[in-house]
Amino acid sequence: MTFSADARCVALSGGVGGAKLALGLADVIADPGRLTVVANTGDDFEHLGLRVCPDLDTLTYTLAGIANEETGWGRAGESGAFMAALGALGGETWFFLGDRDLALHVERTRRLRAGESLSAVTSALCARLGVPARIVPMSDDPVPTVVETEEGPLAFQHYFVRERCRPRVTGFRHEGAERARPCAAFLDALAAPDLGAVVVCPSNPYISIDPILALPGVRAALAACRAPVIAVSPIVGGRAVKGPTAKMMAELGTAPGAAAIARHYSGLIDGFVLDTADRAEADAIAAGGVAVEVTNTIMSARADKQALARAVLAFARRISASAQSSSTA
Amino acid sequence: MTFSADARCVALSGGVGGAKLALGLADVIADPGRLTVVANTGDDFEHLGLRVCPDLDTLTYTLAGIANEETGWGRAGESGAFMAALGALGGETWFFLGDRDLALHVERTRRLRAGESLSAVTSALCARLGVPARIVPMSDDPVPTVVETEEGPLAFQHYFVRERCRPRVTGFRHEGAERARPCAAFLDALAAPDLGAVVVCPSNPYISIDPILALPGVRAALAACRAPVIAVSPIVGGRAVKGPTAKMMAELGTAPGAAAIARHYSGLIDGFVLDTADRAEADAIAAGGVAVEVTNTIMSARADKQALARAVLAFARRISASAQSSSTA
Repeated sequence: MTFSADARCVALSGGVGGAKLALGLADVIADPGRLTVVANTGDDFEHLGLRVCPDLDTLTYTLAGIANEETGWGRAGESGAFMAALGALGGETWFFLGDRDLALHVERTRRLRAGESLSAVTSALCARLGVPARIVPMSDDPVPTVVETEEGPLAFQHYFVRERCRPRVTGFRHEGAERARPCAAFLDALAAPDLGAVVVCPSNPYISIDPILALPGVRAALAACRAPVIAVSPIVGGRAVKGPTAKMMAELGTAPGAAAIARHYSGLIDGFVLDTADRAEADAIAAGGVAVEVTNTIMSARADKQALARAVLAFARRISASAQSSSTA
Repeated sequence: MTFSADARCVALSGGVGGAKLALGLADVIADPGRLTVVANTGDDFEHLGLRVCPDLDTLTYTLAGIANEETGWGRAGESGAFMAALGALGGETWFFLGDRDLALHVERTRRLRAGESLSAVTSALCARLGVPARIVPMSDDPVPTVVETEEGPLAFQHYFVRERCRPRVTGFRHEGAERARPCAAFLDALAAPDLGAVVVCPSNPYISIDPILALPGVRAALAACRAPVIAVSPIVGGRAVKGPTAKMMAELGTAPGAAAIARHYSGLIDGFVLDTADRAEADAIAAGGVAVEVTNTIMSARADKQALARAVLAFARRISASAQSSSTA
């Protein structure tokens, strides 16, 4: 099928980089209610007795237009009175929670304890904040990412925030993934007859996308869905735009580059988008049997996000059209 | 025994009014470590998944010198970013929790869930905040006050904050009091051989002091202790200095006045302190067999708090000396 103006789109996303493209998609899709953003919840953890969902929250704040664009996480115009007072009481301050941001964690935790599912709470809070797209946690079940390092296994946020990604990575575990169920809204969106594109956002493949792919049935649902699956490289010029992706690749023995990302998603994707800076890698990737699109993937301004979103959706339409013509032929 | 400069003092207290006198006592007792302030915890409740202890917190902030003197509760220089954000998310905002204050509730709740007792957490947090006196919750066990009203029973904070004390009171229940144990530090302080005074602070008798007295063994320990038990009237000129004491008395069929407060504590106290405005009631109270002290009990400035504290301690010394001379005679 071709990607029509009212086709649905599913985006798989981690935090910052993924949220930028998700915002671009929400901007350019005529009815943003037809955009389902599936958030990695492998980073989620209990902190100070509160359920904190960093990627879900970054997506929520970004799509609600209240994100802190300088830090890439948290809310704009945030204050730290709570955190300063907590420090004075001897509490744990290694993970910053702003005063406004805290309200989300407190309210979510309260509702989860009252028996609501994470997806129901997310849906209600997104509605309150005026998020135009649907944000869906990958699962209502906990699937905490454990980072295997040369210093032993570390809970994700301990590796990421407390240790600032310092320990050398040897692998990853997605605990409980085999028993977890993908959210119904996620699978429903993949099964929609008018699905036009599945976008694997430019997020860290190991810690943002693999947790989603580790859920039972997700790879099969992606293979079975009617739309092309397109990944956008989070690596530009051999470096991660943000975060430890390149460092992790190097530690795992893979030269950081767009081609290595495409290989990581081999068998899963129909198309791959890489930055103009990595144009030289396009042929090698295409040789792997994947359609390739070269464009600017650095999303600084809002217009960059929208332009990349348009490019990805147009790419999806071309792949669909080509598949249709070849099946007709 | 006489009240020497290094004698111990135990104060039973609710929130605002009690905290003022507790601050005065901490100021005038040479070693404030010998002052044990026993806090009513009947007001405590779970809110937003957090354990909130209003009287304990007012005492803590007051004795740490960081209380908001205008409101009488909460911290000075407080901000409300959390609460505003919570309201925007549709959360419950009827009970205000400031950004800095929230740190205390979050940290306490975390430590309670980790298995620490309320008294241990209180002790640790008070040390952090530099509280010079010992603040002890009346019990580590929950003893929630239920206000019986003409509209049915109400959880205390629902009556007090949400309903603003509007419903007519018919009585009070201290739930679980019969199974609760007073904190060891409370009973130990009452049993101290060098105890010089027990002060029933000018708090609401029904909802601040009676919960403490309802704990098994407390009345017996007060009767057995070596020091005089002295109550300070929370009613001045027929009105409560703060809060619903007079309204409750009227609804329970008692004319609000210092004499009625003294009668309420009949059999428990050795001395009663009333305001100069209520001088006319002194003789009637003394006729009940209780020593009476008339002084200014309105504590506006810090000096007022200290003056009342000195008057109460001097009164205790006089009662002790008189008891000693009559037992010698």
